[in-house]
Amino acid sequence: MCLRRSFWGTRGLAFASIALGGSAEQKQRWLPDMLDMNKIGAFGLTEPEGGSQVSQGMRTTCRRDGDGWVISGQKKWIGNSTFSDFTVIWARDEETNEVRGFVVEAGTPGYSVEKIQGKIALRMVENGLITLDHCRVSDEYRLQAVEGWDTVSEVLRLTRAGVAWQGVGCAMGAYELALAYAQERRQFGKRIGEFQLIQNHLVHMLADVTAMLGMVMRLSHLSDEGRLDDAHAALAKVHTAARCREVVARAREIFGGNGILLEFGVAKHFADTEAIYSYEGTNEINTLVVGRAITGLSAFV
Amino acid sequence: MCLRRSFWGTRGLAFASIALGGSAEQKQRWLPDMLDMNKIGAFGLTEPEGGSQVSQGMRTTCRRDGDGWVISGQKKWIGNSTFSDFTVIWARDEETNEVRGFVVEAGTPGYSVEKIQGKIALRMVENGLITLDHCRVSDEYRLQAVEGWDTVSEVLRLTRAGVAWQGVGCAMGAYELALAYAQERRQFGKRIGEFQLIQNHLVHMLADVTAMLGMVMRLSHLSDEGRLDDAHAALAKVHTAARCREVVARAREIFGGNGILLEFGVAKHFADTEAIYSYEGTNEINTLVVGRAITGLSAFV
Amino acid sequence: MCLRRSFWGTRGLAFASIALGGSAEQKQRWLPDMLDMNKIGAFGLTEPEGGSQVSQGMRTTCRRDGDGWVISGQKKWIGNSTFSDFTVIWARDEETNEVRGFVVEAGTPGYSVEKIQGKIALRMVENGLITLDHCRVSDEYRLQAVEGWDTVSEVLRLTRAGVAWQGVGCAMGAYELALAYAQERRQFGKRIGEFQLIQNHLVHMLADVTAMLGMVMRLSHLSDEGRLDDAHAALAKVHTAARCREVVARAREIFGGNGILLEFGVAKHFADTEAIYSYEGTNEINTLVVGRAITGLSAFV
Amino acid sequence: MCLRRSFWGTRGLAFASIALGGSAEQKQRWLPDMLDMNKIGAFGLTEPEGGSQVSQGMRTTCRRDGDGWVISGQKKWIGNSTFSDFTVIWARDEETNEVRGFVVEAGTPGYSVEKIQGKIALRMVENGLITLDHCRVSDEYRLQAVEGWDTVSEVLRLTRAGVAWQGVGCAMGAYELALAYAQERRQFGKRIGEFQLIQNHLVHMLADVTAMLGMVMRLSHLSDEGRLDDAHAALAKVHTAARCREVVARAREIFGGNGILLEFGVAKHFADTEAIYSYEGTNEINTLVVGRAITGLSAFV
Repeated sequence: MCLRRSFWGTRGLAFASIALGGSAEQKQRWLPDMLDMNKIGAFGLTEPEGGSQVSQGMRTTCRRDGDGWVISGQKKWIGNSTFSDFTVIWARDEETNEVRGFVVEAGTPGYSVEKIQGKIALRMVENGLITLDHCRVSDEYRLQAVEGWDTVSEVLRLTRAGVAWQGVGCAMGAYELALAYAQERRQFGKRIGEFQLIQNHLVHMLADVTAMLGMVMRLSHLSDEGRLDDAHAALAKVHTAARCREVVARAREIFGGNGILLEFGVAKHFADTEAIYSYEGTNEINTLVVGRAITGLSAFV
Repeated sequence: MCLRRSFWGTRGLAFASIALGGSAEQKQRWLPDMLDMNKIGAFGLTEPEGGSQVSQGMRTTCRRDGDGWVISGQKKWIGNSTFSDFTVIWARDEETNEVRGFVVEAGTPGYSVEKIQGKIALRMVENGLITLDHCRVSDEYRLQAVEGWDTVSEVLRLTRAGVAWQGVGCAMGAYELALAYAQERRQFGKRIGEFQLIQNHLVHMLADVTAMLGMVMRLSHLSDEGRLDDAHAALAKVHTAARCREVVARAREIFGGNGILLEFGVAKHFADTEAIYSYEGTNEINTLVVGRAITGLSAFV
Repeated sequence: MCLRRSFWGTRGLAFASIALGGSAEQKQRWLPDMLDMNKIGAFGLTEPEGGSQVSQGMRTTCRRDGDGWVISGQKKWIGNSTFSDFTVIWARDEETNEVRGFVVEAGTPGYSVEKIQGKIALRMVENGLITLDHCRVSDEYRLQAVEGWDTVSEVLRLTRAGVAWQGVGCAMGAYELALAYAQERRQFGKRIGEFQLIQNHLVHMLADVTAMLGMVMRLSHLSDEGRLDDAHAALAKVHTAARCREVVARAREIFGGNGILLEFGVAKHFADTEAIYSYEGTNEINTLVVGRAITGLSAFV
Repeated sequence: MCLRRSFWGTRGLAFASIALGGSAEQKQRWLPDMLDMNKIGAFGLTEPEGGSQVSQGMRTTCRRDGDGWVISGQKKWIGNSTFSDFTVIWARDEETNEVRGFVVEAGTPGYSVEKIQGKIALRMVENGLITLDHCRVSDEYRLQAVEGWDTVSEVLRLTRAGVAWQGVGCAMGAYELALAYAQERRQFGKRIGEFQLIQNHLVHMLADVTAMLGMVMRLSHLSDEGRLDDAHAALAKVHTAARCREVVARAREIFGGNGILLEFGVAKHFADTEAIYSYEGTNEINTLVVGRAITGLSAFV
């Protein structure tokens, strides 16, 4: 179920966090409203000075203070946070060093969001830079069943698998646009789909899409069987993002000059791919996650 | 069943030809002996002046002559033909222009085989240049159920799917060798598998292998369901051969200088890939087969 | 001199057209003002249904009519045409089928320009869709020394060489940004430039930039020596555009998520490359131009 | 002069070692005979457990013993050592840890060479595994002007530049073979050079060769000006080796099945490239040499 949720994009991360880390009461309090889309949740993990692999370097902290908690720090790139009703904020306990999760409602004093401007990719999603300045929340807003970084890892694993699917979907869309254009557009008195150079692009795009589909289908089977681990998701993500880049570049090329105009559609796929390529772990991070799993040797530092 | 046969390599093509194109009596005459490996058959389609897409340009001819046939022409690259008991020879009927298949036994007058020398790839397989100089066979040796080029196409489709699997297998073998070497070989006081640059190779190799596996599994499912068409097989073949090339190049690189020595094993995978890459349709031919299927437009000439 | 002019971008094409195709009087009339930037000229060759290789398919026509000419057709992608003082329009003579050039001033009846919206690349340049609806100009505005398509070819050759340089420049800029970022940005407590995976990107970027530079230096030497031919320019253009694409993709990747934000600069290089990649002849067109030159065989149709 | 010498291949390394590290008397003793090819010298640096970047890890040692030296260790891959008259052996002084060079004559007690078998690349060159088992040489055979690792570095820099040129030459040869074949070989009733897919290969091969040439010309200019540093040579080597791999793969592909036969020539270029790719520093080592130079940060360990 969680995997399907992840297709909703960033809202899925907040949902999964509460589903995995919340008490029964907390799930009841927030999840039905999220499912009905009465409430929008956001997921606040990434920080300005680190990517999504923030386990060691998390700078946002929480401190127990009476019956509540005081949270301080910054979260960057938080999708939907500019208009969400609440955001799941992950923070390191100053005392125990453990990672904890909190549901912070918009409007809480000390909590503010600035919209990130000037994105060239996934412009459909609004991302925010969240500042928590001694933001105080009661203990009821702390996710009660969180087991430190393990819970975050589980959320990331599910959503990383979802992003692997996004790479496939983005590539498929670009392929379909390019195929239709090649069957229609004429040059030198022929449809460009009759030229070997254009067929070469289309065939290698389709081959990549087909192989990727085989890979992510297997990923979902593993997930259904409860056997999905971090390295599986990272391997699929690193691969589909990289191949998607190849596919959309060929698609953009087939459109020639028209490919840089929004009205032909392919430019959106071309640009959005760059977000898919770099979020939920860059190519480099996911490579090192998989590399450690297959060699038994860490090359992070 | 036939798909599995194709994994036996070139013998599978002869087997499939008789299984698909022979009469009941002919199947009984040849197939059991082939299954028991008492007899070795070879498959003679490719000619010196053309690749495996020889439908239009087949120069080997047959001519009805009394109760038999006279065959003339040359076949190149015929695997196992240097020692096979018989070879399936495909020829164009001079009168009707139809394609016919014959089983020609080694030792038949007018039939001779010269071993092709100086191969750098798949050296395990002997290939022959067959010359048929007014080679006469009785009509009993003509495959009775052949329906022209359609029968050849069906054989090729099955074997091309088999070659798609070969690309995966060759890549997997190279990956496994490289991984083991990276976990053992030391440089600068570390195992080379600890270096990011080496992990990068390994991870992208594994990603390619995994995606390819997903693709050929699907191919076999289509085959089992009787829904495999030429373009499916060609798409898989073009893709796994191309990605295999990438994978074995990374594997060879990981071995450094040792990678050019036979004793380390990877050199064999590196070289053999070039045969896989070019047989059963070059990259270019298979690209145009798929391109025609997806665009509805032919770009062959 | 003309080659240097081409670095000014699209204005160079108009300048070169008049310099090469104008009479002495016409050069005197327009060029000094262009050099002083008192007047802006645009270059109208490309049409909606064809790329820049429009020799055969030019649909814009001119017809002699008394002491003047009547021009009809459309020109697309014309840089600066939205605000230029005049535009060089190329048209096919309805009677002789020869290609002729005209200087058409903004405001001439029957001449209108619509700004092309929604560009994702080279947004710094405004491009127009020009419509000529029985637009009448006097013969004095016809470039007197034009020798048909040959003159257009010469202009294109010079500017295509200029675009080859743009590929290098765009790649260099991206490299410099990425290097600076890698020396500053920190992850896991280190500057990311200390990671092998990041150095790998930087080194291959620099290698590509250096090799490209060697290539375009040679191109300019050939131009200085009067030995530049179409295939030289096309070869350099096809190469630098393709390698630039690789370089900017690596640069964008090094910036991670920040690479999709305009404020970090690299996104502009990434997007602009797509214009460079497709204008002045797509990869496909330039490939076929060079292919014909080296094989002596045309593969255009 | 030394750069030109390096084109003689492995003999150049021995020559350069004596030219740079020998006393006047030693130069006179060995160099004229080498120039006249009366004597063949080999260059013994690389060891079984390390590539050519052996500065830190050199295991071959020398120890002062009376009026001579005792050398122990192994050297691998030493070109021509199987028949050379003498070999320059580099060893670490057990006492001072400094690197010293010795000229060891074939037949010296304790010195033995085993030919390395089973090479798939550069089969024209014989490589040896040298074992020095308490091999004793007089001090006259110690290169008197060697300044530790710096002298080795200078030799390597010159020869690495030479190997960069080899990458270009190997690619050029493959291009020329492929072009000639494409102009001759026929398929579907046309010369294959008329197909867009084949022209695409040829054009990108020529573009790579041309850009590489520009790069190594510059390299030689720097060398002539005395401004060649390690990173220049490493950058060129890493680039031409990598692009050569692309070029020879395209060339091999153009030959189809014939490309795996020695008689067509291209197979030799394809295989030899792997030696060029990995010797004088693997892609990884040269990448890290350049990476350190441009970032100012070492990523070796």
